Amino acid sequence: MPILQPLSERLLLGPGPSNAHASVLEAMSRPLVGHLDPEFISLLERLKEGLRTLFGTSNAMTLPLSATGSAGMEAALVNLLERGDRIVVGVNGVFGGRMAEVARRAGAEVTTVEADWGHTLDASEMAEAIERVRPRVVSFVHAETSTGVCQPVEEIARAAREADAMVVLDCVTSLAGRPVELDAWGIDAAYSGSQKCLSCPPGLSPVSFSDRAIDFVGKRETSVQSWFLDLSLLANYYGGAQRVYHHTAPITATYGLAAGVDLVLEEGLEARYARHEAASKRLLEGLDALGFEPLVAESNRLPMLNALRLPERVHSIGEAPVRARLLDEFGIEVGAGLGPLAGEIWRVGLMGENARPETVDRLLEALRKILD
Amino acid sequence: MPILQPLSERLLLGPGPSNAHASVLEAMSRPLVGHLDPEFISLLERLKEGLRTLFGTSNAMTLPLSATGSAGMEAALVNLLERGDRIVVGVNGVFGGRMAEVARRAGAEVTTVEADWGHTLDASEMAEAIERVRPRVVSFVHAETSTGVCQPVEEIARAAREADAMVVLDCVTSLAGRPVELDAWGIDAAYSGSQKCLSCPPGLSPVSFSDRAIDFVGKRETSVQSWFLDLSLLANYYGGAQRVYHHTAPITATYGLAAGVDLVLEEGLEARYARHEAASKRLLEGLDALGFEPLVAESNRLPMLNALRLPERVHSIGEAPVRARLLDEFGIEVGAGLGPLAGEIWRVGLMGENARPETVDRLLEALRKILD
Repeated sequence: MPILQPLSERLLLGPGPSNAHASVLEAMSRPLVGHLDPEFISLLERLKEGLRTLFGTSNAMTLPLSATGSAGMEAALVNLLERGDRIVVGVNGVFGGRMAEVARRAGAEVTTVEADWGHTLDASEMAEAIERVRPRVVSFVHAETSTGVCQPVEEIARAAREADAMVVLDCVTSLAGRPVELDAWGIDAAYSGSQKCLSCPPGLSPVSFSDRAIDFVGKRETSVQSWFLDLSLLANYYGGAQRVYHHTAPITATYGLAAGVDLVLEEGLEARYARHEAASKRLLEGLDALGFEPLVAESNRLPMLNALRLPERVHSIGEAPVRARLLDEFGIEVGAGLGPLAGEIWRVGLMGENARPETVDRLLEALRKILD
Repeated sequence: MPILQPLSERLLLGPGPSNAHASVLEAMSRPLVGHLDPEFISLLERLKEGLRTLFGTSNAMTLPLSATGSAGMEAALVNLLERGDRIVVGVNGVFGGRMAEVARRAGAEVTTVEADWGHTLDASEMAEAIERVRPRVVSFVHAETSTGVCQPVEEIARAAREADAMVVLDCVTSLAGRPVELDAWGIDAAYSGSQKCLSCPPGLSPVSFSDRAIDFVGKRETSVQSWFLDLSLLANYYGGAQRVYHHTAPITATYGLAAGVDLVLEEGLEARYARHEAASKRLLEGLDALGFEPLVAESNRLPMLNALRLPERVHSIGEAPVRARLLDEFGIEVGAGLGPLAGEIWRVGLMGENARPETVDRLLEALRKILD
């Protein structure tokens, strides 16, 4: 039996990947050029510029890292931390917890500031910890994919910079679906993923580093522990006149991301953000009638990742069996809860191309049939 | 101007990427399913089995790592080394040197055994160093992409295992183009790249770890320094009944690799190896008439990566200008020399789909026109 078998059509309304736009898939079927080909270098330059627009930054070091968002997280932390450095990490979900774990493995002294899952971090608690610890790095998550919480950024970032700490922000789920303003917010390192609101397949992590971050990496006393993620080495391929070979860039995935960013820029960021808001509103209204309740307070809800407490009707059938029926009978994937929210919530993603009324209506109709 | 612009058709005869087969590109244009979708998990299981055939192993932990071959190298080394562990690394080109650097950054005590670029490692020198150092890990390169040398594996691997060391082998350029027999050779960790003889786009690194290696990782005293590459965490997604989310696997790239491995298995490994040998022979004969001379002794030449000393005629025009004319006028990419061989050699890749007489003839004809 061949490895590659026909696969079912899926409507991907989980926490990512989302469905890729046809033009992204078409781009990925184009023939390859080499990673040092002048045409590919030009493509990378245009892509870097497009990513700067999405991130709200003029950072020179803005590029598509050759791995998934988790590698983007690791790149941000291992470049900015030396063994023994202190870091304050905000933890209100899976991805804040992952940041803390990555930092520990980089040999950092980690102080966490916790908040209940489904709630935002308390900015004054973060500021107090920053003042007390005087860390090298402060890191937290803009859009917590495990809970659907959108974290206000500016107050924490200001407290960090006043303490001369560098600020790392997880934008995996927010980029291109909700405003991200790295320069206005004072962020030193941010990372995202191709498979969320950019509607590209998973595999690349757009990242951006401030000049201050680059300066720090240049002055480190020790080598970055990861050769693959070392920013100084990456800089010699992604920037500069010489374009020194580091690793072989994923050509085809880069074509796809280029097509995805083109779609975002054609639509316009404001229109895209509004489309995500409208789709989320329609979803929450429809699900309210079925007894689903939002986990997160209205002011801090992410539109592209809707965390919903399940109605009794779903619990009585069993939440996993209902998800399995959605997938098997209707071809719709939604996400389960993680950690303390496992079995308690679903995570319904309306990301990028899927943030549209017809998508929402398809899910609502399927749920009505199953739950009636 | 859109980021994605039309790109020229290229014949990729450098050190990789090679051209992807049409069926691989078609596979990559298919709609996405989720990374936890039962259909995707089944695809992964079939792909793991296919990769085992290519690697010549029954290792359960054989999988497509979600990043390029350099990340595969890092995964092999950071999982098998704890800080302070000793490693013996054979260095006879760029990639042996990279292994040593990755190991240093993992906090290992590194002993290198060097050989001149273009030559194989001396097995008795390796054995002597292994006996003296008593390392945790011995690592070297099967197919040195920077020089075109094929390293005999068995004698060094035997010496390593007699000293109770684990053996790491770089198979980036050899896999699916030349016999790789991990189990027969006694290899504990090996990695490759999708963009060489597998004729898929760059972005995935097939890796394989022996049970002995997995046991070691399970008994480590310290955490693996990379969260993204931690084998214990990867094992919970790529194996086992639960399929615990770790990172979001690159769905589309996995489709492409599945199609690529299907092509290899349809052709048969022996036929594929023979095709690589025949293409290399045809190339070397044709280039001999133009004054190019193989860098590597006949018994240790890689057929998929031909390192060639340049004739006076090329030097008189300039080797970089000749490569630029090949690219601009004929759409053919060949690779430059690296390190001490920069300006001295070219590296002509005949990998996967490109290891065919018509490909060789197209290069020879173009060179005749330029050099006449």
